[in-house]
Amino acid sequence: MMNEYLLFAVMDGIGTFVFALSGAMAAMQRRLDIFGVILLAFIAACGGGMLRDIMIGAVPPASLSHIRYITLSVAAALLCLACRPLLTRLAQPVALFDAIGLSLFCVTGAQKTFVYTGSVEVAIFLGMLTAIGGGLLRDIILNRIPLILQKEIYASASLLGAAIISLTNYMQWNPNWGAWIAISVCFSLRMLSLRYHWHLPYAFKSGKR
Amino acid sequence: MMNEYLLFAVMDGIGTFVFALSGAMAAMQRRLDIFGVILLAFIAACGGGMLRDIMIGAVPPASLSHIRYITLSVAAALLCLACRPLLTRLAQPVALFDAIGLSLFCVTGAQKTFVYTGSVEVAIFLGMLTAIGGGLLRDIILNRIPLILQKEIYASASLLGAAIISLTNYMQWNPNWGAWIAISVCFSLRMLSLRYHWHLPYAFKSGKR
Amino acid sequence: MMNEYLLFAVMDGIGTFVFALSGAMAAMQRRLDIFGVILLAFIAACGGGMLRDIMIGAVPPASLSHIRYITLSVAAALLCLACRPLLTRLAQPVALFDAIGLSLFCVTGAQKTFVYTGSVEVAIFLGMLTAIGGGLLRDIILNRIPLILQKEIYASASLLGAAIISLTNYMQWNPNWGAWIAISVCFSLRMLSLRYHWHLPYAFKSGKR
Repeated sequence: MMNEYLLFAVMDGIGTFVFALSGAMAAMQRRLDIFGVILLAFIAACGGGMLRDIMIGAVPPASLSHIRYITLSVAAALLCLACRPLLTRLAQPVALFDAIGLSLFCVTGAQKTFVYTGSVEVAIFLGMLTAIGGGLLRDIILNRIPLILQKEIYASASLLGAAIISLTNYMQWNPNWGAWIAISVCFSLRMLSLRYHWHLPYAFKSGKR
Repeated sequence: MMNEYLLFAVMDGIGTFVFALSGAMAAMQRRLDIFGVILLAFIAACGGGMLRDIMIGAVPPASLSHIRYITLSVAAALLCLACRPLLTRLAQPVALFDAIGLSLFCVTGAQKTFVYTGSVEVAIFLGMLTAIGGGLLRDIILNRIPLILQKEIYASASLLGAAIISLTNYMQWNPNWGAWIAISVCFSLRMLSLRYHWHLPYAFKSGKR
Repeated sequence: MMNEYLLFAVMDGIGTFVFALSGAMAAMQRRLDIFGVILLAFIAACGGGMLRDIMIGAVPPASLSHIRYITLSVAAALLCLACRPLLTRLAQPVALFDAIGLSLFCVTGAQKTFVYTGSVEVAIFLGMLTAIGGGLLRDIILNRIPLILQKEIYASASLLGAAIISLTNYMQWNPNWGAWIAISVCFSLRMLSLRYHWHLPYAFKSGKR
């Protein structure tokens, strides 16, 4: 029991940090000032969790009442600001960070929702929202059509991960096994889709996009 | 009593389906992938109701805890994806679907809010938000200035509908009559404004817009 | 005790009115219709407070349940619509209105959050969100990258004001003194940054911006 809580707390921390990195980098590309970079890091990292907490009535949201989320977001933003040349030289660092955060957050989000609501379907949807909500808010604030709804397999990978952990919770399997399976499936699907340019079919098939 | 609940459940279902159609069609025009089309259908259909439920503390929102909303949204999205040539050939189908959904949602939204809060003014505002919130979120995510605040009579029609049903509720009239009057007024106003290009005055009158 | 409540109610009213002016003017620049101008005035004025109330579970939000917020927003929008030539001739009226509203809202927002949650850190963050949330929502709906994250010292001034009032509340100082110090610091910092073009460092230093 203790181990599970510790496991999820650690995963939550890692997910927060890597999502904050992606938010800070996107904000730097859009030339926000330093405060804007820190705020976008926080929103990308904690926006999904805050939307989830609002929808399950867990207020004030954990991202605000536990100082570690703000600390991790600020640290990630400062790291980005300090090591910008290094980070931008890495091939697609945003994409890799996103894949890690995505897999961790869909699991922790679905887990928390299931504990609060006891509903598998709410847990699946809010697990996905925890994972993609921060990226959605980041893109909405930075005024672009969310990439996650256009390219490769992203939101659907987190939906699959959230469905796996919610169902294993519902069937009362060992939650650690369920969590690792869900994380592995979501992460593998995301990375494979990036590597081989898998994407879901488009509704319109035009010559040039 | 039973009949009222059934009536509102059926209206809610129809409104959900037609708003989901409008969301899916807008997402297809912006070339989202299939998952994005389904998600936008759900957001356009249920976003207004989710905003209302969050603001009256009815969490988790009904759109998530009742499986029929997700089912209807997915069905509408799949119908759009399958019958795209048919739907795009219809003249302004989005506009017609929107008018139906608008009239139904401002009534059901105001109704639910009045039951929860007992306040006429909150019911009027959240009735309107239920009706226009999904379209607002759809346009925000698809990165365009909400059409509903620029062209023809849209949000104001739903405000009028919400005001009628809220006042008839407050005065304890027969809620069925109140609902049908509100729906008819909102729908007629919206369709007439489309037919005759009525619109509210603009603040700036420029030669070219 | 009575005086404090009165003080904060008056400040809240002034902040609401000036933020509504800024929202209405931005909506007029984007050529929304009259209803859109009124709605944007309300969102710019009350959006931050509504986000705060949702996050502390104070539902329905005070902006909806107290008629004065809607009244003040509509009055400000009508004033803008009626006196447009006058207002647009004033040098940077939006900026001045914003500075006043910013200073008042970060204080009242942090105050209310502290009463509800008893947490200094939540009060600081939600004080800032009360102050900048309306402007953020205004810019998101009007489809532009929030100016407040790019230019001069804005969000950070409200963060400083919220931190001062939260800490003085926590240390149980005379709340009136704390409020006036916080308001003065936030307003002075904002106006000085406008006057002398202070801004936070940018992450990217490019020749042309």
